[in-house]
Order: sequence, then structure tokens, then C-alpha cells
Amino acid sequence: MSDTPSRHVGRTGVWLVGARGSVATTAVVGAAAVSGGFVPPTGMVSQLPEFAHSGLPALDDLVFGGHDVTDTPLSKRAEQLAEAGVFPAALLPLVVDALRAADADIRTGTTGEPGGPTQAETAASLIDDLTSFRQRHRLDQVVVVDVSSTEPLPVLRPAHQQLDTLEEALASGDATLPPSSLYAYAALRARCGYVGFTPSPGVRLPALRELAEAQGLPYAGSDAKTGETLIRTALAPVFAHRALRVRSWSGTNLLGGGDGATLADPAAAASKNASKRSGLDALLGEQVEGLTHIDNVPSMGERKTAWDHVDFQGFLGAPMTLQFTWQGWDSALAAPLVLDLVRFLARARQAGATGPQRQLGFFFKDPIADHIAPDHRLVIQFEELRAWYAGAVR
Amino acid sequence: MSDTPSRHVGRTGVWLVGARGSVATTAVVGAAAVSGGFVPPTGMVSQLPEFAHSGLPALDDLVFGGHDVTDTPLSKRAEQLAEAGVFPAALLPLVVDALRAADADIRTGTTGEPGGPTQAETAASLIDDLTSFRQRHRLDQVVVVDVSSTEPLPVLRPAHQQLDTLEEALASGDATLPPSSLYAYAALRARCGYVGFTPSPGVRLPALRELAEAQGLPYAGSDAKTGETLIRTALAPVFAHRALRVRSWSGTNLLGGGDGATLADPAAAASKNASKRSGLDALLGEQVEGLTHIDNVPSMGERKTAWDHVDFQGFLGAPMTLQFTWQGWDSALAAPLVLDLVRFLARARQAGATGPQRQLGFFFKDPIADHIAPDHRLVIQFEELRAWYAGAVR
Amino acid sequence: MSDTPSRHVGRTGVWLVGARGSVATTAVVGAAAVSGGFVPPTGMVSQLPEFAHSGLPALDDLVFGGHDVTDTPLSKRAEQLAEAGVFPAALLPLVVDALRAADADIRTGTTGEPGGPTQAETAASLIDDLTSFRQRHRLDQVVVVDVSSTEPLPVLRPAHQQLDTLEEALASGDATLPPSSLYAYAALRARCGYVGFTPSPGVRLPALRELAEAQGLPYAGSDAKTGETLIRTALAPVFAHRALRVRSWSGTNLLGGGDGATLADPAAAASKNASKRSGLDALLGEQVEGLTHIDNVPSMGERKTAWDHVDFQGFLGAPMTLQFTWQGWDSALAAPLVLDLVRFLARARQAGATGPQRQLGFFFKDPIADHIAPDHRLVIQFEELRAWYAGAVR
Amino acid sequence: MSDTPSRHVGRTGVWLVGARGSVATTAVVGAAAVSGGFVPPTGMVSQLPEFAHSGLPALDDLVFGGHDVTDTPLSKRAEQLAEAGVFPAALLPLVVDALRAADADIRTGTTGEPGGPTQAETAASLIDDLTSFRQRHRLDQVVVVDVSSTEPLPVLRPAHQQLDTLEEALASGDATLPPSSLYAYAALRARCGYVGFTPSPGVRLPALRELAEAQGLPYAGSDAKTGETLIRTALAPVFAHRALRVRSWSGTNLLGGGDGATLADPAAAASKNASKRSGLDALLGEQVEGLTHIDNVPSMGERKTAWDHVDFQGFLGAPMTLQFTWQGWDSALAAPLVLDLVRFLARARQAGATGPQRQLGFFFKDPIADHIAPDHRLVIQFEELRAWYAGAVR
Repeated sequence: MSDTPSRHVGRTGVWLVGARGSVATTAVVGAAAVSGGFVPPTGMVSQLPEFAHSGLPALDDLVFGGHDVTDTPLSKRAEQLAEAGVFPAALLPLVVDALRAADADIRTGTTGEPGGPTQAETAASLIDDLTSFRQRHRLDQVVVVDVSSTEPLPVLRPAHQQLDTLEEALASGDATLPPSSLYAYAALRARCGYVGFTPSPGVRLPALRELAEAQGLPYAGSDAKTGETLIRTALAPVFAHRALRVRSWSGTNLLGGGDGATLADPAAAASKNASKRSGLDALLGEQVEGLTHIDNVPSMGERKTAWDHVDFQGFLGAPMTLQFTWQGWDSALAAPLVLDLVRFLARARQAGATGPQRQLGFFFKDPIADHIAPDHRLVIQFEELRAWYAGAVR
Repeated sequence: MSDTPSRHVGRTGVWLVGARGSVATTAVVGAAAVSGGFVPPTGMVSQLPEFAHSGLPALDDLVFGGHDVTDTPLSKRAEQLAEAGVFPAALLPLVVDALRAADADIRTGTTGEPGGPTQAETAASLIDDLTSFRQRHRLDQVVVVDVSSTEPLPVLRPAHQQLDTLEEALASGDATLPPSSLYAYAALRARCGYVGFTPSPGVRLPALRELAEAQGLPYAGSDAKTGETLIRTALAPVFAHRALRVRSWSGTNLLGGGDGATLADPAAAASKNASKRSGLDALLGEQVEGLTHIDNVPSMGERKTAWDHVDFQGFLGAPMTLQFTWQGWDSALAAPLVLDLVRFLARARQAGATGPQRQLGFFFKDPIADHIAPDHRLVIQFEELRAWYAGAVR
Repeated sequence: MSDTPSRHVGRTGVWLVGARGSVATTAVVGAAAVSGGFVPPTGMVSQLPEFAHSGLPALDDLVFGGHDVTDTPLSKRAEQLAEAGVFPAALLPLVVDALRAADADIRTGTTGEPGGPTQAETAASLIDDLTSFRQRHRLDQVVVVDVSSTEPLPVLRPAHQQLDTLEEALASGDATLPPSSLYAYAALRARCGYVGFTPSPGVRLPALRELAEAQGLPYAGSDAKTGETLIRTALAPVFAHRALRVRSWSGTNLLGGGDGATLADPAAAASKNASKRSGLDALLGEQVEGLTHIDNVPSMGERKTAWDHVDFQGFLGAPMTLQFTWQGWDSALAAPLVLDLVRFLARARQAGATGPQRQLGFFFKDPIADHIAPDHRLVIQFEELRAWYAGAVR
Repeated sequence: MSDTPSRHVGRTGVWLVGARGSVATTAVVGAAAVSGGFVPPTGMVSQLPEFAHSGLPALDDLVFGGHDVTDTPLSKRAEQLAEAGVFPAALLPLVVDALRAADADIRTGTTGEPGGPTQAETAASLIDDLTSFRQRHRLDQVVVVDVSSTEPLPVLRPAHQQLDTLEEALASGDATLPPSSLYAYAALRARCGYVGFTPSPGVRLPALRELAEAQGLPYAGSDAKTGETLIRTALAPVFAHRALRVRSWSGTNLLGGGDGATLADPAAAASKNASKRSGLDALLGEQVEGLTHIDNVPSMGERKTAWDHVDFQGFLGAPMTLQFTWQGWDSALAAPLVLDLVRFLARARQAGATGPQRQLGFFFKDPIADHIAPDHRLVIQFEELRAWYAGAVR
């Protein structure tokens, strides 16, 4: 990374944990398709006129690599996604070089299965992958983004609380970290910014946040809001600001694809649900009745449908309801945000920012807070992002 | 009105044009029920903790009167509304005195039918009703709120453009003003603040805005957002801020009651639709395809149902949709806002404000602008209201 | 019961297991309100013109009694239901006598808690209640209807398979029967027809079906279809008959009230879900993906909302969807069917019918079959009922 | 056509009026794709097991031709439809021969514009096209199907009432027939069966029905039910048979494509709406409140979305609602029914049937009645079709 700050971030590495998944593949396809001018930048926040004064790394300055534990070629995954309807098959020949290039920079990751190398050994290997990637491509900086499968809620352990305790545990061969946090550890040790795109713990453990500060690195997370929660954080203020009393807020999500299968596991779903629910309670100022279901429906493929039912009272107790149905494509909703987050985080780092990046709360269900509680209102989050950008590119 | 500013607004008159309609009746019932402690202040913005530092007229310092062209007693209307389900019949005996008191202060209004007195004569009579009301009850001030039936879009005439031309026209016996604007004229001449709760022209004519400035009076409008548009102004920023491209936004409203019947008239519906659509186009930054229907379904009674369908594109052109269904009670949605608007406008006047009250844009589909274009985003509008209040009660 | 068959069924007892519940109370209120001419017979199938040639017991020839384990007076329950919005409070004074009369004929039932009398002793007591009721009111016949809370799926035991084994088990003091089946046993022993209105096992155990045949008694069940399943059995034929391939059928039910609380118990919900799902699979000719949730949302009170999402393929694989939202009042949907079932079953018995009454499949999610598999299509079920009636009243 | 009846219908011509439209093109693509075994016969009623005892013309015995007034090649239209998402582009190379073959049998039709040849001359030309087609391909019979744009409701004239008056009018050069009826006239004169797939008058004029009888030809119509009405005729019996009182039934249809543009014309929409509404009123036994909108939303392309809202009362007047949203692809819904109708009508003709084919009411919004009023209930219509088939193939 260059030592002297400049107005523009140069070549930036995007290191995707889960690099052969749907979101990662769509991100690589999309970056190439948009920067090649084959499609408009629909869905990319960082391409809005509000962020056009530059200062962000150019789309064609992004270099993709990552870790994964499968070995399906990206071109094969891209074909599957096109067939599933996520993007037009006609795009494939136009982005084949980009897919091949990213493929060449994907390394075998870790699942944390017992019986293998120690976590310290694994971390060393991951760090090596990251530094080699940066040197090989002469990158200004690298941002690591976790887009792998959601993990169960972690069992918190003392080694998660403090950096020195963590280092001791690792040194002693203890497998203390959940996989997402082991990746985050490696990212920070390799001097990379970090984005937790899923509800997995990742960088959220206090010991890792301490490490980020020590390394002078910015990070952001967690759990990108792409559908039901996105709409919830836009709608909940209606009730709060109009003094309408929400009695129950219930939701059902139907999805197939990898995410559907992962979330069919009750432990992973619990992790997701905690993340989904927290913002809603904060927005409404109280816990309201209602469950949120996440159903795995394999035949839905990459499609994602959410139905929400809000039962509320108005003046003089009048019973009223609001329902919405959201129908989208999971990867098409998530992938552009990966690109946005990398670009904004790279800019933040270049501007000298460290620690949790509050202005990126706009993208997350459960924003990692600094000392002020996050505002979950989507419009306020957007204004915070815009204000930060206006200051950062000044 | 008292000459010396004080921290508290005292007894405040609420003069309702359309005083025997559903919204007016529910407002009177509700003010009594809430100030009597019989129901919580659900649905009242001005009772939120954000506005608790006082400075607003107390609910039991509101005195109700108004104009109407029918003579159904308020207690009868209230019974009909209770039977229709707007509020519990058990409330009726508790508010019967309040209804009787308001009834005694309702005067016969004007429909603007040709062949009667001139508009100048009518205005004089309306002004007299207002000043008598203020004196009779020793009110600090009176706010006139138009909650009467929506008028067709007016044919604009030269006399609407300038105050002196308007006065000449009135003096010559010309029936130049649409009824809502004749009421607004009378309100301003009687030194009352004015709220345009419907899409009718009311105070919007340039000649009347000139009159308000001349009289040093504040006003606000127009067309309270209570359902479909309320949700639209909360949802549209999702698309704008996430760079999602809305292809079409279609809506259907089903409603009975008086409002349904009024809006079954294509001319009145055109007025409503222009008001509904303007904010959406502003929020999305372009005109998108899609119609908005308002269907009169008499058997729906006071219930109001809106279905909206938004078709949009995401990353790489992925087609997605959002639908919502809103089910509410028309008068229960509107009535608390009448009380809110009166309280906030009275406070603004006491603080010396004149002209259009931008901070009340939160309540309207089509906020009357000052020199800066209105921001239609609900959350921003709320923050503008909160910031104004914080300053006003300082 | 009269020995000579006649064209008309006379005074008929309606014995409700769960007589103080919402459904039972609404049935008593409704029978009185309709037979008194205070409301039209909306929602009552047996009052359709198709069934007007008489032969059914008149509504004011129904005499209500039942078992329950709580002692809330019916008038109190009725007030609660009126307040919850199930029916207008104005009906209450008009039906107060009917409620009082039914109250006087409610006896304490059994919950099957261990440590009390043996099942044989309990059965004897229940039988005694039934025969006393019949004699006290000189009834032609009595129909027992189980409207009590849904039980978990029973553990099947040998004593459930054959009548003589069952009698031996009871004689030996064995608590072999689930509560609903103990009531069914008593009903049949007391020579009463039986209707299983819930998914509880009731008369479905083979030993009890054998008893019904031995006693020459008709019965019907189980699990009245009142909402989501009602609509499903109307819609599923669209897909089957139009050769559209359903890929998934998902549903979420939100309900409060007693039913919501009961079904929050996973064991009871399993019982309900098995009942709900069976018809759908039969109608579609295969098991399709998709879950059906039943969420307890206490603040919904007596309201019940179901959302269903059907994902299907059309010609050349085109992906399409159908969604529906059903919003109703639980007891108002169920109660008229109680009256219908009693009237039709009484008529069937008078016409000499014994065993499962196929023609009543129209009313049930999971019709108790005779030797031919039930047809779940709602319209066909209606035609079966109509054809039977036309024959029965000939 | 062969003189001796046989068990199997042989080579059958499918003559499509509007042969270059979306529905026609999809039908040609689909017939080739299904008969080639490239896709399963999803969406084709005539391929259900219920109709497997043969007697219907085989799919690969169908020969396609037709009239149209545009000259876009079918292969071009097919590409557009694939791009719009109606079927996978991968099908195109597999059906290219079938498209080319049909293309070669499409002739220029008539729009009925004034100033050209007389209707008698046009009819002669159309008849010549039909007989040439039959002879050229040695077809057993030809079925003409009108899939062209919906016409406005016709102005009825005396010449429409009786065949001899009609012939006189034509002979005199009078342009008496709406275009769809001129095609129907030619079809019948050329001894072809006729299917009215749209709400246009076609064969419905009494003079043409007389002609069909005189020629001994069967016909069916009109206005295929493919979406909203399909669901309505499945759902309305729920209310009728459960004695639930529908207060209003409202609907909004959003569609683009050619159909959307056509129905944006209020005159054509009136025609469609009359057709849509008739069945609903018949099913409910009364006219209920509520409008049905058909909105042209060009950006929806081939997609079609319908939202319906049913407001109804249950027991004791309890207010309840049912809403549904249907999302489909217009041509994919319609095209298989074209194939079904041709196959069933061809079979009916071979079995000697003439006049309106009641058993095909299953396919239509507004079935052409024989002397008994049509039953609009979808399930009953299916059973009528099945019973007829069982008899016809005996």
C-alpha cells in the first residue's frame, strides 16, 4: 500500500472468502460486465451520482481472488447462475476472461474440520495466500470479504475477548476461533481491510476488533441487508414516526440455492434470525410479537421471496395491517453490495480510517457499532454514507 | 391572540371546514378520548416523546367548531362511525359532551352554488363566524383546517395570481374562487392559520399565499398522506438509494365512505392523483410507468385498502418486484393528523412563523414548498419536524 | 329417539365437547341470532336454497349442552368474543336467554389427567351426562361434536385396534384412550352420533369405528376446513386440471386466541399439519416442497391470517406463482359449520345411515373415508353433499 | 376429411388467425418442443393421464399455418419471446424447422380496413387459403383458431342475426362483419371447425352459428381463461357453497406485450371486461360491487400480474377478505390451450359433433352456451370434459 495519501485509490484486491459461491461469482461477472459497459450499473450504490466525485477505486482496478473449499470453476458456476436466471446467458462470453483471471487467484480455504493443521498453521497459510496475492498483482491494498456460508452462533470463549489471550490460545494449538473469525484474523494479520457480509462472527470478536485497531485497519459488517430486512428498515420508521403501535411483525422467507440449504440448519438460522430481529426491535423501540421463518425450498433456486405481515393499531385503537411481498434474486441483490463495500472501505482506509466504519451501516442488518448505537433507518444510513463521502473526498 | 410570545400556546380554536364529516367527527371524538385518558394517544405524532418538551397547545385546550353544509348532529355521525368500526362504541358516552360542545359551534358553510350571495358576501359571513368563535371562547388563536370533500383541479384564472386582482374580482361580484380557496381567503382575512388537509387548491393560489404573507400568517398543506402515499414515501428511497431501477409502480385503492364517493368523480380523482403521483416521481428521479386507481366500493365503508406493485431491475438487469397491501380505517388515519397539524401550526405561529411551514411536509402528499423543493422522504421529513421543534421550543 | 322414521328430524341435542370455548359459544349465539331472525344465515351451508326442501332439524329445535373443564359462563365468553370483534355487541342482549339455557346444560368434562378415576369410570359418568340430557329435554337424538383443543398425534396401541381389546383394557383400569377418543367412546355408548371437528383422533381409532357400526350410528370428521385449507382445496384443482406443475406450496398461518396457543405446542401443531397436508398431496398427485407454519400471535386475538405461496411451472417450463392472503375470524368461520354438521348428521341418522358419512367430507380437511378414497376437491364435495341430500329428503 | 369415422384423428391442420403473434408462435414452438421430447408436456390439458386413451390427433400430426397482417418471421418472434423470458433460448435451434414450416403456410390476412376489396371478395380469398392449405398437406381436417387482437364490442346489425340476411348483405358489398367474424365465416364456408380464443365476436353472431349448423361443423369459444378468471372460477364456489356473502370483488391486471397495448384501448377493454365479469356474476348468483382494471404496463413485457381483492361477510356478519396475486407469462398460459382446443375439437368433429361444444367450456371465460346455461365452476367444467372424452373415445 502506498504511504502517501492520494485522491484516488489505485489497484485494489478483492479477496472473497467463499470465492466460488453464487454471490462471489456474480460479483466477478458483474464487475466485468459493468466496467466493460455491457450493462448499466443498476444496483450499485457506489455508482450513484452522489458518489461520482471519484475517490473510489475504479471498477476495472479491482482484482479478484479468494479462498474456497470446492473447486468448481467460476465459469461453470456462472453458467449455472445464468441458467437459474440470475443474469442473461448472453453475458457469459463477455466476461469469460475475468472469470478465468479470478479463478487463477482462488486458493483452497479451511473449513475448520478437526484433525488437520492447527489454527495457527492454517492462519499462516491464509496470510501467505493474501500477501502473495497483493505482491503478485502489485495491489495498493486488499479488502477481504466474507461471503461464505453462515455459521452457527459461536460459543463465546475467553480467548475471544482479548488479543493476547487469543494469541496464546493459538500458539498452544487450541482451535478456538470459528472459521469466519480465523479468516478475519488472517486478513488483519495480512494488513487487509475486512468486511463481514454474513451474520457469522468474523471480526466481531473483541480480540479481533482489538487486532484491527492495533493494525490500524478499517472493517465493516455484518450481514448485508438485501431483501426483507432492507424493506423492514425502510418501513419500520413509518410506524415509529407516525406513533402507530405495532402489535406483531411476522415474516416468512422462501429461498433455495446454497443459502436456503445453509439456513435450513436451525443453528445457522438462529444466527441469521438474531441478526434480522435486532434492527426491527431497535426501530420500533420495543420487542413485538411475531416469528421470522426462513424456509429452504430447493426448487426456488436462486429466487428469494419474503412475505411480511405487520399488525398495528392506529388512533383510538383502530386495527390495521400492512403486508408486503418481496421477490428477488439472492445473488443479484448481494453481489453489487460486495463491490460497493470494497470500494467504500478501500477509500476509508486510504483516508486513514481505522476500526468499525459506521458510515457503511447502510449495507447491514446488524451494523458493527462504534460508541454510538447504530441508526437502522435506511434513509438516515444513506445520508450518513453520503455525508462521510462528501467529507472523505473533499 | 396574545401579543407577548410565551412558551406555551393557550386555548386554541380548531375550525374545521367539513365539520360534520368522518375525519372531523373522529378528530373531536379522539381529542376528548385521549385528553380524558380513555385511550392512549396512538397515532398522534405530537404526543411522541420527541415532542414532549411542551410548547404545543394542550389537547384539552383545543376548542372545536367549523363550517358544514349538512346538519347531521355530530353524535349521530359518531354513532355511524362506531358502527362502521372506526372506534369502539363504548367510547361514545365518554365523549358525548365534547361532541355536543363542538356541535354548538358549527355554522352553515358554502358550497359555492351559483345564484346565492356573491363570494365577497359569503366571505364576510365566514369571517364573521370565525371572529365570533374566537371571541366567544377567548381563544389565543384559531387554526382553520379544510377536511371537506376534494374538489376538482381548478381552472386557473388571472385573479388567482395576485392579491389586488383577486380583491378587484371579488369586489366586482365575480365568483372567481373555488370553494376551498374562498374558505382559505376568509381564514386569512380573519387572521387564522390555515391547513389544507385535502388536495383542493385552498391556500395554494398565489394570490392567497400573498395574502398570508401580508397578514403574517403561517399555513401548511396539502393532502395529508395517510396510507398508500405514506408507504410510498417510505419505500421509494429503497430503490433510489440502492440504485435499483423502478420500471413501473402501479396501485389500486379500494375505499367506500364519503371519500370513496367523492373520488368516484373523475375530476376529483384527477386532483388526488396529481397529488399522489408528484411525490413518487420526485423520489424516483424520473416518471415511471403505472397507473393509480381509486375505486369507490361503497360496501367497504370506512375501510381503505391499497395494493401497490413495483416492478424493478437490480444488478445485471435482474427483474424483481415488491408488492404491498395496506389496510386501514380512513378517518382513524386522518383524524390524529388534524390534531397534530393544529398543534404544530399554532406553535409555529406563536414562534412568529409566517408563510408555508416546510417542517410540516411530513404530513402531506404534496407539501407546499418554500424556495427549496420539498424532500418527500418520510424519515427526512420527520427529522425536519424534529429539528424545527427542537429549535422552536428552545 | 323415535322409532318410526319421519320426514322431519325433531328436537335435536347438540352436545359440545369444549362447550365454553370460542367456537361453541359462537355456535350458541349464532343459532339463537339466526333462528330469532336478528341476522341473516350467512355462512350456514345448511340454510342454502339447495337444502331448503327441509328434512333437517329446525334451528330452533336445536338444544345445546356439553362438557368443559373451565367454568367461565357462556355470557362472559360471548362478551369477550364481541369485544374481540367476532360479532356485534348489540347481539348480546338478544341471545342472553339462549346462552343461559346452554350454560345450565354444561357438565364438567375430563382432561384425562392421571391420578383421577379410571377411564371406565369417567366414561360411565360422561354417558350418564348424555343420557340425562336427552331425557331431560325429550330429544329425538343427540349429536356430540368435539370442538375442544387439538391433541397431539396419539401413540397407537393394540387396544385402539379392536373393540373387544379396548373393552378389556378399559375394564382393567388401563388409561388407553386419548381424551378425545374417550369422549367419542362415551358418545357412541350413549347412542349419539359423533362429529370430530378437530384433528384429534376422536372416533378415528378402529376400535371406535367398530363400536359405531355395532351401535348403528353415523359419524363424521375430521378437522373442519375453515380457512387456508378451504382455499387450498378450491385452488389445487386449477393446477391439477390445467396440467401445471406445482414445485412448492408454502404457507404461514398467524392466529391468536385459544387455537393459536394450543397450536404453539409443536405436538398439537404436528397433528394439525398432518391433517392440512394430506389433502394437498392428494389433490396434486404428489408430495411437493414447502412447509406450513402455524404461528401463535396472541395479539391477533380471534383473527386468523393465512398467506400461501405456490410456485409452479407452465408450458415450456415457464416459472409462475400464485399467492393468496386469507383474513378471517376463527370462530365465525367454524361455528356455522358446527350447526351444519349437526343438522346433516341428524338427518343422515334418521334416514338410517351408519358409519362414516362421506357426503360430509365437504366440511373437513381430512375426511374420514369409507372404502373409496375421499375426493378433496371442494366443488365435488359440495356436489356429493347436494346429491346425498336430494336422495335423503326424497 | 375422411368419410368413414375412425378411432384416431389423423393429420390435422391448425390455422391460426394472428399467426405471427406471441400466442401462435409459442404454440408452434411448444408443439415441436413437446412432440420432439425436448420438454415435458406441462400445461397441456390434453396430455393429462385422463385423456391418454388416445383418439386425439397426435401432436406431431398437427400442421400449422394461418393468417396475419404483419410479416415478421416466426423465428424472429420466437427469439423475441425467448429474450422476454417466455421460454429458454436453448429451445430455439431445436424448433427452427417447425417454425420455418409454419412460416411457409402463413398468408396475408385482412384487417377489415375500408377501401379495399369487399368482404365477399376477402372471404373468398380467405376460403381459398384454407382449402389450399388442407389440400397441400392432405389434412384430415382443419381447425381455425382466432388468436388475433381483441376487437371492440361489435355494433349488432340485422345481417348478424340470420344467415340469409347476412349472405345478402355480403353479396351487396356491405361490410357488415367485424374482422373476427369474417374469418369465422370463411372458416365455416371452408368446412373448418372454429375456436374463438379471444373475446372478439367471431362465430358468436347468430347468423354464423346458423351457418355452422348448416355446414355440420363444431365450434367453441370464447376468450380463453388463463389467469385471473381461471382463479376466479376456482375460488368463487368457495363463497357460493359456503354461504359466504361477497360484498365486493375488485381486480387489477398489469400486463405489457401486445395484449397490454390492445387492452389499453377502452373499447377493446370493454369487450374483455364484459367477458371477465359475466362468469363471476353467474358464480356468485348476484352482481357484486367492484371494478376490474386492465392496465397496459409496457415494461412488464410478456409478464402478467393480477391482484384480486374479495371482501365478504361470514357468520353473524363477520367481515373477512381474500386476496390473491397471480404472476404468469401470457403466451405460456395461452399457447398450450390452443393445442388442447384443436385436439379436442378435431376429436369432437370426428365423432360427429356439431354446434357449440359445451365440454370445452373448461377453457373459456365466456363459454358459448348450448340450450343449458354454462356452469362456470372450473372443476365441474373439467369433469364435463372428462365425461365427454370418456364417451367420445369409447
